[in-house]
Amino acid sequence: MPSAEGARPVGRGPKVRAAVLDATLAELAEGGYAALTIDNVARRAGVHKTTIYRRWPDREALVGDVLGEHIAMELPIADTGSLAADLQHLAEAFVAWVASPPGRMIFTAIYSDAARIPGIAETRRELFEYGPRRAGVVVDRAINRGELPADTDPAAVIRTLIAPIYFQLSVLGEPPTKTTAAQSAQIALSAAQAGVFSRTAAKRT
Amino acid sequence: MPSAEGARPVGRGPKVRAAVLDATLAELAEGGYAALTIDNVARRAGVHKTTIYRRWPDREALVGDVLGEHIAMELPIADTGSLAADLQHLAEAFVAWVASPPGRMIFTAIYSDAARIPGIAETRRELFEYGPRRAGVVVDRAINRGELPADTDPAAVIRTLIAPIYFQLSVLGEPPTKTTAAQSAQIALSAAQAGVFSRTAAKRT
Repeated sequence: MPSAEGARPVGRGPKVRAAVLDATLAELAEGGYAALTIDNVARRAGVHKTTIYRRWPDREALVGDVLGEHIAMELPIADTGSLAADLQHLAEAFVAWVASPPGRMIFTAIYSDAARIPGIAETRRELFEYGPRRAGVVVDRAINRGELPADTDPAAVIRTLIAPIYFQLSVLGEPPTKTTAAQSAQIALSAAQAGVFSRTAAKRT
Repeated sequence: MPSAEGARPVGRGPKVRAAVLDATLAELAEGGYAALTIDNVARRAGVHKTTIYRRWPDREALVGDVLGEHIAMELPIADTGSLAADLQHLAEAFVAWVASPPGRMIFTAIYSDAARIPGIAETRRELFEYGPRRAGVVVDRAINRGELPADTDPAAVIRTLIAPIYFQLSVLGEPPTKTTAAQSAQIALSAAQAGVFSRTAAKRT
């Protein structure tokens, strides 16, 4: 939104916006949130910094905006008729996403100090909490086919599939591979089959 | 180490050092690395900032030092004669550690922009790579008792136990509980029993 004083339109709007957001993501990935400055974003985007200030009051607004744009990760959800294969597809799609340029940049950003911005915490929950809930449909189908106990918690299965991939990337600092994906899918599958995610079992502990 | 010009001893050495490191950890936990300043550390520690600069050239050195001091997390490694119980003990000890004040502060620090300091990355590896390797002895014992396939990768079992606890804390932002610990131990156990961490199985994928 242009400020009251800057009544003239700011160049070619959507193009400028895209350039600024791309530059922000690149700066974040390179130097983290601590080192992010509007000056550097402006330089990289090839715009004057007043152009940025006209649209974004501060760097928090900029970062919130950029992650909002890139969060639309829609993992393809397979329906092969077998839970093992569905989980394997899901794990591979997640591994591919975290290895992609937007995936990598978003990971870097949400684990910089930018994570202290409330909007970023929300982005992280979207990725890792609501996402698994949506993908839980592959577990629902397996329950309906009689492959798993009826009281299996679908989101817990998906979180278990994601956790090792996430761990390898963010803790060990090693890019997850197809082998990581296969093993993560097998961990989630064998635990689910053993009844670990059965809601009554959880209550018993 | 005192600088060449400051030949006099700096107050009561170890006491000052402890106060400065405590203040650094508290500042990190409160505001992250991005907001960490020598000024604030000095104010919180109740020392003059030249006292800090005499020992630590910059904030990176300070943060590296503070994490080095607190990293000595020695998880008690049980030997109950049952893998299920040993894993459960390990998971509970890890959950207790991440909930403790030093555990919480270290977690906050290693996931701030301070993580970009090479020394911090090393700290994280120490926590999550060498730690699991040491704890792998409970898996070795289970293999010797015939509880698991002989070619099970011990560190992979321990990482699988840690990953969900870590995921809940750092992604979902929820403090892990005894239930988390029990479920994590069961996930690692059932996957290990199913042969997921068998080294030949990994090669087949």
